Amino acid sequence: MQDSPFISDVPAESAIQAWRRACLSHGCAERTDTVTVALADAVGRVTAEPVWANRSSPVGDVAAMDGIAVRARDTHGASETTPLWLAPGSYEVVDTGDPMPEQRDAVIMREHVHYVASGSGESAEILAAVPPYHNVRSIGEDVSAGELLLPEGHRLRPVDVAAAAAAGATELTVRRTPRVAVIPTGDEIVPIGSPPRQDEIVDTNSLMLAAQAREAGCEAWTTAVQPDDTGRIGAAVRDASATADLVIVIAGSSAGRDDYTARVISEQGTLAVHGVAVRPGHPVVLGAVDAAPVIGVPGYPVSAALTFDIFAAPMLAELEGAAPPHRPETRARLARKLPSVVGMDDWVRVRLGSVGGTVVATPLPRGAGVLTSLVRADGLLFVPAAVEGHHPGEEVSVQLLRRYPEIERTIVAIGSHDLVLDLAANALRSSDPTLTLASSNVGSLGGLVALRDGLCHIAGSHLLHPSTGEYTLPYLDEMMPDRELAVVRLVHRDQGLLVPPGNPHGITGLHDLVERDLSYVNRQRGAGTRMLLDHELHCREIDPQRISGYAREEPTHLAVAAAVSAGRADCGLGILAAARAFGLDFVPVAQEPYDLVLDANTLDDPLLAPLWELLDSPAFQASIRELGGYDTEETGRVVHRSGRARPAT
Amino acid sequence: MQDSPFISDVPAESAIQAWRRACLSHGCAERTDTVTVALADAVGRVTAEPVWANRSSPVGDVAAMDGIAVRARDTHGASETTPLWLAPGSYEVVDTGDPMPEQRDAVIMREHVHYVASGSGESAEILAAVPPYHNVRSIGEDVSAGELLLPEGHRLRPVDVAAAAAAGATELTVRRTPRVAVIPTGDEIVPIGSPPRQDEIVDTNSLMLAAQAREAGCEAWTTAVQPDDTGRIGAAVRDASATADLVIVIAGSSAGRDDYTARVISEQGTLAVHGVAVRPGHPVVLGAVDAAPVIGVPGYPVSAALTFDIFAAPMLAELEGAAPPHRPETRARLARKLPSVVGMDDWVRVRLGSVGGTVVATPLPRGAGVLTSLVRADGLLFVPAAVEGHHPGEEVSVQLLRRYPEIERTIVAIGSHDLVLDLAANALRSSDPTLTLASSNVGSLGGLVALRDGLCHIAGSHLLHPSTGEYTLPYLDEMMPDRELAVVRLVHRDQGLLVPPGNPHGITGLHDLVERDLSYVNRQRGAGTRMLLDHELHCREIDPQRISGYAREEPTHLAVAAAVSAGRADCGLGILAAARAFGLDFVPVAQEPYDLVLDANTLDDPLLAPLWELLDSPAFQASIRELGGYDTEETGRVVHRSGRARPAT
Repeated sequence: MQDSPFISDVPAESAIQAWRRACLSHGCAERTDTVTVALADAVGRVTAEPVWANRSSPVGDVAAMDGIAVRARDTHGASETTPLWLAPGSYEVVDTGDPMPEQRDAVIMREHVHYVASGSGESAEILAAVPPYHNVRSIGEDVSAGELLLPEGHRLRPVDVAAAAAAGATELTVRRTPRVAVIPTGDEIVPIGSPPRQDEIVDTNSLMLAAQAREAGCEAWTTAVQPDDTGRIGAAVRDASATADLVIVIAGSSAGRDDYTARVISEQGTLAVHGVAVRPGHPVVLGAVDAAPVIGVPGYPVSAALTFDIFAAPMLAELEGAAPPHRPETRARLARKLPSVVGMDDWVRVRLGSVGGTVVATPLPRGAGVLTSLVRADGLLFVPAAVEGHHPGEEVSVQLLRRYPEIERTIVAIGSHDLVLDLAANALRSSDPTLTLASSNVGSLGGLVALRDGLCHIAGSHLLHPSTGEYTLPYLDEMMPDRELAVVRLVHRDQGLLVPPGNPHGITGLHDLVERDLSYVNRQRGAGTRMLLDHELHCREIDPQRISGYAREEPTHLAVAAAVSAGRADCGLGILAAARAFGLDFVPVAQEPYDLVLDANTLDDPLLAPLWELLDSPAFQASIRELGGYDTEETGRVVHRSGRARPAT
Repeated sequence: MQDSPFISDVPAESAIQAWRRACLSHGCAERTDTVTVALADAVGRVTAEPVWANRSSPVGDVAAMDGIAVRARDTHGASETTPLWLAPGSYEVVDTGDPMPEQRDAVIMREHVHYVASGSGESAEILAAVPPYHNVRSIGEDVSAGELLLPEGHRLRPVDVAAAAAAGATELTVRRTPRVAVIPTGDEIVPIGSPPRQDEIVDTNSLMLAAQAREAGCEAWTTAVQPDDTGRIGAAVRDASATADLVIVIAGSSAGRDDYTARVISEQGTLAVHGVAVRPGHPVVLGAVDAAPVIGVPGYPVSAALTFDIFAAPMLAELEGAAPPHRPETRARLARKLPSVVGMDDWVRVRLGSVGGTVVATPLPRGAGVLTSLVRADGLLFVPAAVEGHHPGEEVSVQLLRRYPEIERTIVAIGSHDLVLDLAANALRSSDPTLTLASSNVGSLGGLVALRDGLCHIAGSHLLHPSTGEYTLPYLDEMMPDRELAVVRLVHRDQGLLVPPGNPHGITGLHDLVERDLSYVNRQRGAGTRMLLDHELHCREIDPQRISGYAREEPTHLAVAAAVSAGRADCGLGILAAARAFGLDFVPVAQEPYDLVLDANTLDDPLLAPLWELLDSPAFQASIRELGGYDTEETGRVVHRSGRARPAT
């Protein structure tokens, strides 16, 4: 494949094979060189040759107990009723690990020996006969000289180097650490440190990819950002290929940008693959320049990270002669329908939580630009090209990104977004490193649906019921009439219009939205704030369709604040804390309760106990009030529980 | 608990609590200090404070596709049948990632746009209407300013620091890496490098423990070896406690040696625990000196390694405010009965292999001095104090020490030991880093029993049938009459008496054993070499009981050679390769076939294919012959298969 502008959909396995062939034909090394290093420096490295024991351990027969060394045949006939006395000189006192004296072949524990004064010293009284080699560690019990201790291709652990030392090694021959060069490209890419202009993107990918390479046991460095100039990029690749075992070129996020990488590889060496049947990661570029493999990773950060995992990490392991990386897996029940395009491998980030004894996997946003979807992911769900997605409730296998016990110690909150949940998540983790509060923001209604379907422990809700004017409770009766539920008050909070600093449009209330044709940024359908808006508009007899921007939906208060802050809208309904986070002004509209809904029988779940304790803490309540716009009078109170009051605590 | 010479059996959990209390009362820090580091240096560290986004990402609305930026309302009504033309100036060409121009709120993909020359430039023909924010990434889509990105107590991964950078961070506040001092003690301990005398032990534990600490993310150093002198050890501990967050004192292997550590801690600080109900690891010492926790680990290397895992590693994680380490687990069927003392936690090293679709766990030697049991272990089976062992065949949960796919790519060989298996294990791994040949040496008969019970893929056997003079085959008929088995010839090999260099006793054959009262070292019951000896003795009408040392059993040829080499026996029966490994002389006694026995239907198992290929390779056969004493004429040949010959390959 030479210089084709066409991005293909090569299946991942074929792409890897094509890349390997291109590398071999370019004379790329199959393994890095061998180096001989001191034992302490060998940990984490991969053996380049077998380690044969050149000394036995123990080096001779040694006592396995504290006691006396004897000749077994001298003890024949000894018993409790017919004790034997060993004369001085026919036994020696030994400690564990002492070499066995000449002519001695067994040890009697010191607890079983009594000393009796005799003419020339002390005789040892023994009450039991012992067979030869009783309580003796034989020479070579651990390892015998000449034995294979470790094969070639073994990644050394602390215990391995210790065993090698015991078997006489003082240094080991291992593979040289692979070297990885990372080349960021793109006119709009700026280094980390300076705040980006609107048309600039901070170079987070180099940081991430170099760290991924180091995590894979490699030496890694990053070059300066190269402009969108094939000559400059080509020179950087050639330069890197002289010393690196793998060259990573990062395209900008423009879809056409990877064409530069493909063209450069094609001009300077061999282009093996441009485009794979993998999402995210589709426009990856694979090839070789001089004697170095080159990979062009897409600029979208999720694509960049996964592309490293799928293509670069196995190649780097192979260079060291080691088995490729592997993540443990768990079975999980899928929270909702997951469509997937046939013909494309799909790597879906999921949150995991153990709810009611079942591990539940909730897909996270699938956009390749949403790096936080990878930060927040507990696992990766791989949907192979041949599979057309999954049904809700289907059992799937998920690669773990967190350790399993942490999944089990995760409080899963799904529902409306409130900053107090962030505050609580941090406070809980701070007091117990094994505890996680993971909240997914899908709006109040979405949270209640998730609770109904057994997908979460708690649902955050501030859902106004228009006909009754009550919050949340009427929905519980409608949606889960047969469930015994509890409702814990989190806070009362102010909702209002977030407006630019100084309130330049002089907004005083919702009526201004239509009267003055202001642009609005809305929350999604099912969000409590959306319900509140609709209710308030209804009371004021304002037709929502007359509001410019009513159709623009954002998933959180902060996203609404961000839109107003960026000048993309004149105002949006949200909480005071969100306004403060962005330095916006706030025009109050209403106060509302924000509650946590849960199964009544999980109120006493030990997993949730630290959360209730936290909500009762005056210090935590004070930190809530500091956010602004919150009332903590009823924080932590069970305001509803199938008609019963919460037991006093 | 102060200065008690008595070693108790404190349950592990109580011991940890007592240690924690002692540390708190000594003013030991609950967490290490905080330090602020650059993003690239933060990977692997633990956050000491929450990371809040202080910038949104993207920083403004940006195009999510290459195409033209438009005002959505301008596209109303466009369709394939009623195309619309956007005049120059009412749209802008944008690339993915470009900021949205003022007054534009949607992007139409370039594939869906046709340009038509018009008076003032080019008009864009569009064939479909788009809603607002179509193909636009909103400000904060990834993360909004003010959002909690990472909680305190989070161990940072590459993706986390990249997301932090995107959200405006340039450095992060993390916990200082815990510092660990390792103090080796004992008059008999010598540093790695010089060959130990018979009464010396190489200090492999310091190397291992410091490496374990580094693997746990700590800074670690090792002091000089301290003699058995409480004053010297005390000074070393105080000195270390001034800078270290954890002090590890390694006792010599003598059972009484840990008393020094206990006494030192008691004298210099607080002794919290001396002796825990854990095997191996029983005599562990826990306490605090000045403001540092101190642990005294036993000198036996398996005890030292596991003690670090059980007591030190969770304490170090807690100092960093992180969750304790965790190993993935697998279910496995226990290969044989596993007794365990009630009242003691038991950590049993096991080999794992997937045989016939079932993961089988075979316990390894349980001696605390057998470090290779930990090197060779694929997993740890934890038998809690309350459990009195397990029955054979019972399903148990095993903590994995190797990655699961490597377990599935392991050829399990159980049976007689031969160096050719070591050679093959290395050659297979060298050609395929994911492939392991794991051989357990239990003698030929033990191997056939394991094959019968479904515990291995292949059984190595050279088992002489005394009444027929045939090898191995008669046993298959007796033991597994209904199984369709195949027998693959590994080698023919010479068996003979291993004698010291120069054959000082002038041994010429087995008759010398009794005629000259030589001391002998034997192989265990069920070993093919033991059967051969018994057969040869029977032919010569020699009574085994007349042989001095007949009762001393060693498990491998190399262990026999080691015993002869160390002067603990005058001779033993074994293979020439073992004699060569120890520089011994060899007096031939017999030639015998050594075969691999397996289920006939696993001959075609893809897992085993590389082994058959290897055995057929002339280069590998040559490397076998180089060992000496081997004939490879029939190597790789199927010599028996339910009456059928092996298909030609």
